[in-house]
Parts: sequence; C-alpha cells; structure tokens
Amino acid sequence: MNAEAPDPPAALPIALDAAGGDHGIAPNVEGAVQAARAGVPVLLVGPRVALHAELGKHAGSAGLPLTVVDAPDVIGMDEHASDVRSRSGASINICTRLVKEGQAAAAVSMGHSGATMASALLTLGRIRGVDRPAILTHLPSKTGFVTLLDVGANADVKPVYLAQWARLATVYLRVVEGKEDPTVGLLSIGEEEHKGSQLVLEAHALLREQDGRGLRFYGNVEGRDIFQGTTDIVVTDGFTGNVVLKLAEGEAKVLFGWVRDALGSSLQTRLGGLLVRGALRGLAERMDPSTYGASILLGVRGLAFIGHGSADARAVKNALLRASRAHQAHLIGRLEAALAPQ
Amino acid sequence: MNAEAPDPPAALPIALDAAGGDHGIAPNVEGAVQAARAGVPVLLVGPRVALHAELGKHAGSAGLPLTVVDAPDVIGMDEHASDVRSRSGASINICTRLVKEGQAAAAVSMGHSGATMASALLTLGRIRGVDRPAILTHLPSKTGFVTLLDVGANADVKPVYLAQWARLATVYLRVVEGKEDPTVGLLSIGEEEHKGSQLVLEAHALLREQDGRGLRFYGNVEGRDIFQGTTDIVVTDGFTGNVVLKLAEGEAKVLFGWVRDALGSSLQTRLGGLLVRGALRGLAERMDPSTYGASILLGVRGLAFIGHGSADARAVKNALLRASRAHQAHLIGRLEAALAPQ
Repeated sequence: MNAEAPDPPAALPIALDAAGGDHGIAPNVEGAVQAARAGVPVLLVGPRVALHAELGKHAGSAGLPLTVVDAPDVIGMDEHASDVRSRSGASINICTRLVKEGQAAAAVSMGHSGATMASALLTLGRIRGVDRPAILTHLPSKTGFVTLLDVGANADVKPVYLAQWARLATVYLRVVEGKEDPTVGLLSIGEEEHKGSQLVLEAHALLREQDGRGLRFYGNVEGRDIFQGTTDIVVTDGFTGNVVLKLAEGEAKVLFGWVRDALGSSLQTRLGGLLVRGALRGLAERMDPSTYGASILLGVRGLAFIGHGSADARAVKNALLRASRAHQAHLIGRLEAALAPQ
Repeated sequence: MNAEAPDPPAALPIALDAAGGDHGIAPNVEGAVQAARAGVPVLLVGPRVALHAELGKHAGSAGLPLTVVDAPDVIGMDEHASDVRSRSGASINICTRLVKEGQAAAAVSMGHSGATMASALLTLGRIRGVDRPAILTHLPSKTGFVTLLDVGANADVKPVYLAQWARLATVYLRVVEGKEDPTVGLLSIGEEEHKGSQLVLEAHALLREQDGRGLRFYGNVEGRDIFQGTTDIVVTDGFTGNVVLKLAEGEAKVLFGWVRDALGSSLQTRLGGLLVRGALRGLAERMDPSTYGASILLGVRGLAFIGHGSADARAVKNALLRASRAHQAHLIGRLEAALAPQ
C-alpha cells in the first residue's frame, strides 16, 4: 500500500486491477471513468505514473471519485496462476487485500483468470459450507438471460459441490438480480433422472433432496435448454461449463459472420442489408459478453469479479456497476447466512 | 425373418428401421424411395401391411430396389433401451441381425438411440481393440464441417477410450470423407497441455504418444475452436459431446429465430428481409442436422447409423447414402486393420 491509498470513503470503492487484460490500462481507465460518472467510486490499482497519465486524457476526471493505488507488478496473461503466492506487489493481490482489509467493496480484474481466482481464494478464504468456489456467468436466452456455473474454476468436481453452487446461485439471483424464486437445472444428457454421468446421477439425488429448502430444483436439462432458458440457473462442473461458455460465444460469432457474409453476397442482399442493419446490430449486442461485464467468483469470503481478457471499456464499466450492486445488496452476508450449517 | 426377405442382391442393401422415429413410417419410406432412385437398394424393416400401403403412395416405386421385411414390433421412443434384449422381433433387432448375417450392408435407424446402440452392440459385437463404441457426428464450421465424437454413447469414459476414438475417427474421415491426414483436437478448457480435467490430462499424454502413428494430434482445443474448425476431429467424452451437440443445435435455432424476428420488426426491415431471404435460407440449411442424415456408431463390427427422432425424408435419404458410401469404402475392414494390435 502506498501514500495514495485512501481513507475509507462514505461509499466503499471497488478495487480495479487496472493493469489486467489483453489491452492494458486504457480500457480499464476508461471503464472506471464511466463507472465513476455513474456514481461508483473506484480504486485504480496499477502502475501509478502510467495510470495518472491515462487519467489525464479524460477531461473532467479530476473531480470524479477515482483514486490511484500504486502496484509495481502485474501477473501477465502467460504467467502461472501460482505466481500470486510469491508476488505480493502484483496488482491483483493488492486488489484482494484491499477487500480483505475492508478498504474496498470488491475486486474486479480483466487480467489472468487463474491468478485472480488464486489470489481471491488465498486472501479472502472460503465462505463456511462451501468446499470450492465457482465462476458464475450469464448467457443470453429466449427468456432474457440464463445463469451458468461453474464455467471454469473446477475441472474435476464432486456431487456436493454442484449442490452448494445451486444454493449460492439461487441467493445471487435473488439478491443481485431480483429473481425471487429462481429454478435450478442440472446439465445432463437426457431429461430423465436415470440419464447422465455418475457425477450427475449423484448430484441429481442431492438436489432433489434440497428442493424446496433454499433452492427450487427443476430436474435435468440438456444442452438445448440453455438458449431456450428452460431454467433460470444451470449448474454443471467447470469443465463442461467452460466448454459451453466458449462454444456459445464462438458459435454466435461464426453464425453472425455468416449472416454478414450472406448479406454482402450480391447487390440485392447488400441493398436489403442496409435496411436490416440496425435491427441486426441490436442482436449482436445481445450476444456480446461485455453486456454482462464480468463473472463473479462465488463462494469466496468477499466480492471478486473476473472478466474477459479482451474486455473493452463498456465491459469494465458494467463489471464495476455489477460489483457495486452486489456490495450494496450485502451479497456476501446473504450467502454466508444461506450456506451456514443448520 | 419372413418370406419376403431377399436373396443377397448384387449390391448389398441397407436395412432401414422403417418404423423408427417421431414421425413413424412416412418420412422413412419417402427417404428410402429417394435413396433407391439414387441407386441405393433398401430393406424396409417394419410392419408389412402399413409399409406396402405407404409405398403405394409413391408412384413408380414398384420398379425400385426396395424390399419390405416384416417386423411385428418396434421399440417406442419412451421405452427402455434394455428392451432390445428380450424383443427379438423389434424392427431394430431385425436390422442389426440382417447386417450380422451378411444380408444387409448397414443398419440405419431414426428411432430410439439407446435401443439402436444396444442392439448393434449385442448383435454385432465390438471391433478388436475397441473398448467402447462411440457416436460420431458432424457439425458445420468455418472450414466446412467438423467431426465430433463421442456425442452420447458413453457418459463416463477412460483416457484410453478417447485415444481409440481418435484412431477410429481418423480412419472414418480418410475412408468415407476423403480427408487424407485429418487433425485431431482434444476438447479441453485451455490450449496448454497442463490444463483440463484429470481425464483430459491423461488422454493428452496418450494422444501425444500416438501422434504420427495412425493419427495426427494437434493438441487441446477449446469450445470456441469447434465452429472455427481448428481441427478436423474433436474428441471428447460422451457427456461433454452430447451437451456440445445439443447446445450447438439449440443455439443456432434460437439465433436464427432472433434474426427472423429482427427482420420482421418494422416495415423497413420486412422490405430488407424480402431481399435477403434467399441468402439466409442457404445458411439455415447449412445448420440443419438433416444435411448429415445420421451419426455413425463407430467401434461395432458392422455399420450402424443413428439419426434424429425428428428426421425428415431428406435426413433418411442422406443417412442411407452415407451408409452405402461407408460400405463401399470397406469402412469396417479398414477400421479393424487400423485398430488391430501391432
């Protein structure tokens, strides 16, 4: 911590790993400026001089609730997650420490996902009753959006993790998104309860047991149910969830590319394309991951958000607003209460 | 077998489970008529009277190489796969027996997938060197199509299965699709070889060992690589593969629905929509599973194809043509040679 670290302000600020991500500090600073304009105070954690220089490019940013916290080091996208153990001056470690010490409401990073997870887990610890934290994200669906977890924190899991994640996600949707009684689907390869892997069969039994006690279990769902929005929450292991997330994003990108190509294929379609362009742009935005900003690492004792390395300013801003909303809704306390042994 | 069973004809016919599928015999008979017109002889296995009546609706079908084989029983979509053990008169069992006895080149069914797998495995047995058969299918990609397996035969697998499937799929693409030296990707949650589940880490090591000896191993691929077509083949467990297949089809359906809605949203977009309609229809067809007809059950000692329950006549026809092509290319013999212990 350096001399620029703030006294705890009236509204607790969000600590942003301002050096994290594929595009360095520019989109982080721009997103922070936008969030600050929307009333969310931000601690910009990263190389002090560069951050001040970048802030200088944004007219009027001097009056905003933005504070630079110097971090001499950053964990690069191609370094090892385990480096967080030895590099206490890395920006992500300073972010999670600010949360731990009560000087920040949440840590947000578009940098190395594994490092962010490791740093959050090491510094903040786990909520009682949670064996492993999971990454929760949103995908668009016919019903608006569907909430999916785990999307990559745990490649190998036990049935009880899935049951814990279902509870955590239920509280998250209730508290942060205002969905009163969200339904939980267990991702499988058939709707019938006797279908699926050994993991899914055992998780199904656990979830069935807990139905009506802290969660609403719909039963098994299949791959096609995700975009249909059959349930509000889809729970799965971090291997399958990560494949689902990357396939869903990759497929949307390729399909919209094909639509673009089809519209450019002749004079007639180019004319038609001019007329439909605006309507299709709305669609592409609906599929854009930056709409949701970042995913939450659910199950650690403090708020930690993990974004795409390719995040733009809009994604950074949305992540900061989401983090602020989760803090104001007392998400961590609500999760602790819901998971406490009865 | 009844009196209508044929002497083995010059070109061995394909046995079609003519009663299988959500829509009963009509699309099966229509698809068989189309395949027969294209020169592929077909045995229509199902209820004799109903099949003759349906055939009567197709003018000129009398001169085609179509033969009805009576099957008094059919395994319904909501019955148990294990029923194949006790119901020897079920249409799918008669199909696989015709293959076993050398009277048919392949069995094709749009009916109960689990029953088709069970019947093929019980009647035809496994190819030597294959622990578990897998279902191989195709998905559209930027490069044309990508070949994915297993898409649902095995929810829980061992690393060695994945390595065997990679060899089988390599031979399949070489022999049936004319891809000389197809690349194999292992589906994981990171490109780096140290990322993934325990299963994937061990399968990665096995595939690395076999690279250059019967297969060409690219390394790990991620969900986004499927539509990118990064590799010709993507190998994964039957749980993940089934989720991928159903998600990919479901997402395409929802996204194209959104495109349709966007084009109908105003007078301007409806005008534009008229101009681009033809170009977009080509795209929807590219995503249509019936283009590929059916998936092959790879690893049994005989040709068995499994289609969508919702298959239309075009899917049935394409499945029959694909089965005929696999037979003419001596696929089973080539697979046996490739998997034989060295």
